[in-house]
Amino acid sequence: MRFQSSTKGICGEGFHASGIRLGKCGVTLILAACPCTAVGVFTKNSVKAAPVVLSKQRIGGRIKAIVANSGNANCCVKGGLDDAKAIGDYASEKLGVPKNSVLVASTGVIGKKLDLGLIEELTKKAAYKLKSNSQASLDAAKAIMTTDTKAKMYAVKSGELFVGAIAKGSGMIHPDMATMLCFITTNAKLPRKQLQSSLNDAVAESFNMVSVDGDQSTNDTVILLSNGFKKCKKDLFQGMLKQVCVEIAKKIAADGEGASKFFEVNVSGARSEKEARIAAKAVESSPLVKTALYGSNPNWGRIAGKIGSVIDARFERMSITFSSKTEKAKVLSKGVGIKSKDSLTLRKAKKILRSKEIVVTVNLGSCKGKATAWGCDLTPEYVKINAEYN
Amino acid sequence: MRFQSSTKGICGEGFHASGIRLGKCGVTLILAACPCTAVGVFTKNSVKAAPVVLSKQRIGGRIKAIVANSGNANCCVKGGLDDAKAIGDYASEKLGVPKNSVLVASTGVIGKKLDLGLIEELTKKAAYKLKSNSQASLDAAKAIMTTDTKAKMYAVKSGELFVGAIAKGSGMIHPDMATMLCFITTNAKLPRKQLQSSLNDAVAESFNMVSVDGDQSTNDTVILLSNGFKKCKKDLFQGMLKQVCVEIAKKIAADGEGASKFFEVNVSGARSEKEARIAAKAVESSPLVKTALYGSNPNWGRIAGKIGSVIDARFERMSITFSSKTEKAKVLSKGVGIKSKDSLTLRKAKKILRSKEIVVTVNLGSCKGKATAWGCDLTPEYVKINAEYN
Repeated sequence: MRFQSSTKGICGEGFHASGIRLGKCGVTLILAACPCTAVGVFTKNSVKAAPVVLSKQRIGGRIKAIVANSGNANCCVKGGLDDAKAIGDYASEKLGVPKNSVLVASTGVIGKKLDLGLIEELTKKAAYKLKSNSQASLDAAKAIMTTDTKAKMYAVKSGELFVGAIAKGSGMIHPDMATMLCFITTNAKLPRKQLQSSLNDAVAESFNMVSVDGDQSTNDTVILLSNGFKKCKKDLFQGMLKQVCVEIAKKIAADGEGASKFFEVNVSGARSEKEARIAAKAVESSPLVKTALYGSNPNWGRIAGKIGSVIDARFERMSITFSSKTEKAKVLSKGVGIKSKDSLTLRKAKKILRSKEIVVTVNLGSCKGKATAWGCDLTPEYVKINAEYN
Repeated sequence: MRFQSSTKGICGEGFHASGIRLGKCGVTLILAACPCTAVGVFTKNSVKAAPVVLSKQRIGGRIKAIVANSGNANCCVKGGLDDAKAIGDYASEKLGVPKNSVLVASTGVIGKKLDLGLIEELTKKAAYKLKSNSQASLDAAKAIMTTDTKAKMYAVKSGELFVGAIAKGSGMIHPDMATMLCFITTNAKLPRKQLQSSLNDAVAESFNMVSVDGDQSTNDTVILLSNGFKKCKKDLFQGMLKQVCVEIAKKIAADGEGASKFFEVNVSGARSEKEARIAAKAVESSPLVKTALYGSNPNWGRIAGKIGSVIDARFERMSITFSSKTEKAKVLSKGVGIKSKDSLTLRKAKKILRSKEIVVTVNLGSCKGKATAWGCDLTPEYVKINAEYN
């Protein structure tokens, strides 16, 4: 089931937001009219940024606000935890909410000391700008951007129920390891345990399917705030949340650093869903596949080779199809590759790979497990951005 | 202990070699005067090239020759096994040795049918060129090159004992997944079991430390031929073999596709050797670290972040030093990063990163486990090569 999208982003009933930026430094505020139940998914990296440590400590309490800064990850620096607390305390003062009710998140370069003065100044300005409309949500999405080229916002509604999100991130490509932040608001009234399990499931099928190498960065944070205004069934909420997370994940993949093309990998016919996920992620994160797509090079052998390296694949059962919105080209059919003489299919495949949006469909021919991953091509521009970013 | 290097490559006493090339297609022959005991390490990829399947079947017997072709991996094609046998049979005929005594290897693009006629023609020419000198070994090394820019050959001697190798490969960067071939000759007389365990150990500390992502390609093959002319102690042989494999591994890393810089990662202070290997390989294969080195960007945060994502690291104990042949700059000292105001160290670090050969030393500060990995930077040229290669 597909839910109706909404333009309000995170600013559903009872949520205010704002964002302000000065150069590389931005501050985003999210304020809940009523205290919320909050659940989160955080980086599994053993080197964690200070705001991650702080927010994990606080998330079990009643949450009123989130303050996030871009430009500096507040990670791998002495006194980082004190700085994260100072940012939270300042927001708590400006918003008139308890200190412990503020969650903190940061994104940007790691290993550098924060400019606390600048962040306080921007927080103050952001506090005065708090509003509850589309523009406020967009401002909030913009202020957390780093190497992102587009603001990322998406929301759905079903009757009076809503789920909305803003995010920043390159997913595929880890700008300085401080990759991804996503803040989600909802009015769904559900027990904390159900909110958490819904979030875990949605993240597994969305954000975790755009990660380049299975690593989570030092700052990855997804927070879901629920003010509990509306009673709802778990399944309905779960469907809405998944749609929001998948759409945001696709936006992150499409806006990958230096990306010129977006591509989706659909794997079916695997022995299990887990196996399908492993295969889909491996194809999507392979530099060889990514460079081939950049070069519109229908090199299906790289896809088969990559899959064989991560799961026990049967080549003689494998099929691979490239498709764009309008065309399809089957380049491998149960282990029999396209003949170099078959210039029609080859030409069609090359044409498809020149599209901006490409779907790679792999059928492993074994069983019913399936999964989808999202990514982008690897371009010289990616190298340039990451050679210079600091 | 460091053994004396020798210029003879694989052409030690009792071994002949030759190589010939026409455009992208090359053929290399290695002929042993007397039947050899052969052991090998092959790709673990479940999608295996036909020559890998064939050589694995034959390697237990007495081996007289190896025939290898470049330009086509003979992988993911119908009838590939028949073609591999045909290549072996043709070499057996031209060299006058039993069919089963010939090992076969291929490297190049996958999914395309071999040009058997061309390979036979080149094999015939190569057979007439067989010699036992440095030039013959070099010709053999040249004929198996694909995107390699330099021929890779190295040998050591200790008294009358020798171990020599030729190889092709990009190690770090997987040209079309048909990455690496290495042929090693020796006169060391040791039981098959000891030859195999020595090879396994040497590969673990050399070639497996240049692999980009832990995946082995569809064609990876390392074969060791021993004619058993000289009795020797296992430890002596093991030392010589390791030196040969490490030097070849470094050549592969330095000649990575599009590489402008070579870098070595030394990890010490890990809880175990295994943990050190995981950390060293992760740093060496990180696109973010590789692009930072390309840009001479002393972004040590990416190194710390990468390590934290693969092992349970204690940031407050971690130290990181960049060095060139003449200079050193410690950028992280037990969790305390270089200050942005410390322009002297920062300038030195940038200068070091502009060198062609860089060493990254990471001390984890926990225990005594250590490991070394080798790699190269990630450049726009890499993207270009792989966007176009077919």
